Amino acid sequence: MRPKRIVTIGGGTGSFTLLSGLKKYPINISAIVTMVDDGGSTGVLRDELGVLPPGDVRQCLVALSDSTEMLRRLMNYRFDGGGLCGYNFGNLFLSALEKINGSFTKGVMEAADILDVKGDVIPVSEGNMRLHIKLANGKVLVGENNLDHNQNIRKIGIKKVFLKPRVRANKKALKAIEQADFIIIGPGDHFGSIISNLLVDGITGAIKHSKAKVIYNVNLTNKKGQTDNWDLDRYVFEINGYIGENRVNFATHNSQKVSRYLATKYVRREGSSAIVVLKDKTKKRPFAVIGGNFLYEKSVPAVRGDADADTRSFIRHDSDRLARTTMFLIDPEMNRKFVKKIL
Amino acid sequence: MRPKRIVTIGGGTGSFTLLSGLKKYPINISAIVTMVDDGGSTGVLRDELGVLPPGDVRQCLVALSDSTEMLRRLMNYRFDGGGLCGYNFGNLFLSALEKINGSFTKGVMEAADILDVKGDVIPVSEGNMRLHIKLANGKVLVGENNLDHNQNIRKIGIKKVFLKPRVRANKKALKAIEQADFIIIGPGDHFGSIISNLLVDGITGAIKHSKAKVIYNVNLTNKKGQTDNWDLDRYVFEINGYIGENRVNFATHNSQKVSRYLATKYVRREGSSAIVVLKDKTKKRPFAVIGGNFLYEKSVPAVRGDADADTRSFIRHDSDRLARTTMFLIDPEMNRKFVKKIL
Repeated sequence: MRPKRIVTIGGGTGSFTLLSGLKKYPINISAIVTMVDDGGSTGVLRDELGVLPPGDVRQCLVALSDSTEMLRRLMNYRFDGGGLCGYNFGNLFLSALEKINGSFTKGVMEAADILDVKGDVIPVSEGNMRLHIKLANGKVLVGENNLDHNQNIRKIGIKKVFLKPRVRANKKALKAIEQADFIIIGPGDHFGSIISNLLVDGITGAIKHSKAKVIYNVNLTNKKGQTDNWDLDRYVFEINGYIGENRVNFATHNSQKVSRYLATKYVRREGSSAIVVLKDKTKKRPFAVIGGNFLYEKSVPAVRGDADADTRSFIRHDSDRLARTTMFLIDPEMNRKFVKKIL
Repeated sequence: MRPKRIVTIGGGTGSFTLLSGLKKYPINISAIVTMVDDGGSTGVLRDELGVLPPGDVRQCLVALSDSTEMLRRLMNYRFDGGGLCGYNFGNLFLSALEKINGSFTKGVMEAADILDVKGDVIPVSEGNMRLHIKLANGKVLVGENNLDHNQNIRKIGIKKVFLKPRVRANKKALKAIEQADFIIIGPGDHFGSIISNLLVDGITGAIKHSKAKVIYNVNLTNKKGQTDNWDLDRYVFEINGYIGENRVNFATHNSQKVSRYLATKYVRREGSSAIVVLKDKTKKRPFAVIGGNFLYEKSVPAVRGDADADTRSFIRHDSDRLARTTMFLIDPEMNRKFVKKIL
């Protein structure tokens, strides 16, 4: 039997987490990656070299790479002095390959070859787009990096996001979606990594018409000014809204208890409903809710005097746990066989 | 029979040319590389990141790399815009690996692994040295980059060069020399790539006491203010002088006629005896002179309207020709077998 064809849609840490787990299974992966990043060294490269943003693609390449630990560390290395301060080495690597090959997609393919990547990493578009963020007061912010840094978003709230200029999807992305057995959306920053993919011309149409089943890995937490008080149903409703029909077949949801310490910390930062919940467990829905224990093991409550507490204490998906549940939906039989091998 | 152990001593384009040719033979190569470069993007990296100079090592790694053409092109890629303008990607690669590994030598070993390098590339020292150039008028210039750019050298002439601070040789370099069957010095810039290696504490002593035969690939041309009017004997005399005895066993010499066009061009630039000659063919010497047709094929006279004339018209060694003659000295039998395969 041919390996199942899986398309993931996302970017950043969310895709990194999912792909790092999925890589261990004998499936055929195409990772479609958002291209709106314009913060940090990625933003500088866009401005100065006129290249496309390499940061999200880099994370997906590293996640799917079978190369040595050293090469993977190198791809994440950030220079810390002089004129190079803040530049990520892996981003320079992708930008140089884009320049040499005259095309970002071609550069990514060469990078995948060098990094011994299992599967395809596909920039969602080769267009040079910017994410525009319309606030509730009508003001428009230009640039994805505002999502993390602009305090007005937290205060005023987002009304909607859009891309400018409008860009067409990468043909490789459309083909991957068309041929997919499963499309996995998320996890990832709702506007920055998920919606920014769905806004690219052609993507939602392709998802709509694909025969693939759609799995949506709903985020674990909400963000103030962006997804305040959203529960699982609201997330699925939004995604289906962009696609234009009830296309999500499965939504995964963390049913593991979040420690009081972490919950308090998040609520303090993101508001009263920072943790995404499943409100009515018995409600009839056009999709199946798949619960799982998804919390990253190290997201444990800090104990007094624990020096690592601050880096460990945040809520996020565990790579293997998320992949295991996802694979359970994709191929229960294979999953059972592999869970033993991996864990 | 175990493969012959060959040590090369040099740097820059000279080592690149030699190693690119030698790589094709089944021998065990250790390339000892000068560490005085402080020009261009290498100089900037030294100053800003406090790293050791990566440029010469990079060229040797690329020469000995069995990796894809794309990876080799990437290592030589130079950014051409913004704050990164002028930075060579391969140099950033080596500097990042030095930082991650906390040691330049260790970083080079990791780079060799990633680039699938055949043989060892060994920085001659891990000391942070500068080449000092004493002019005939007593004035001292600090920095190897003066050799190519300081007009006072052309006008006044070099009296001698020295290193500051004095640095100890890399132990790996000393071990390679001790175990070598053949030591190959040059080709390469006389002061910048050859003498800068011999000045490192321990190197000449190791050469003196090694049982290896010494082959010296004498340069094809002289440089004004540096090696004016030197003939082959003078070059060998200088090297033996640094070692402290007549240690050179073979000196290779280009016996191919240089076109009038190129000769004129060089004489105009470097003085009356720009081409290195063998003055007295019948003289009794403590070393054997090995003649060969070494000229790079493309060093041909330009014809009117030849757009590439300027980049093609310089006198340099042909990689395969130089390697073939060198290998003839190292292993005549194997050489005969391989010449057929390679050429």
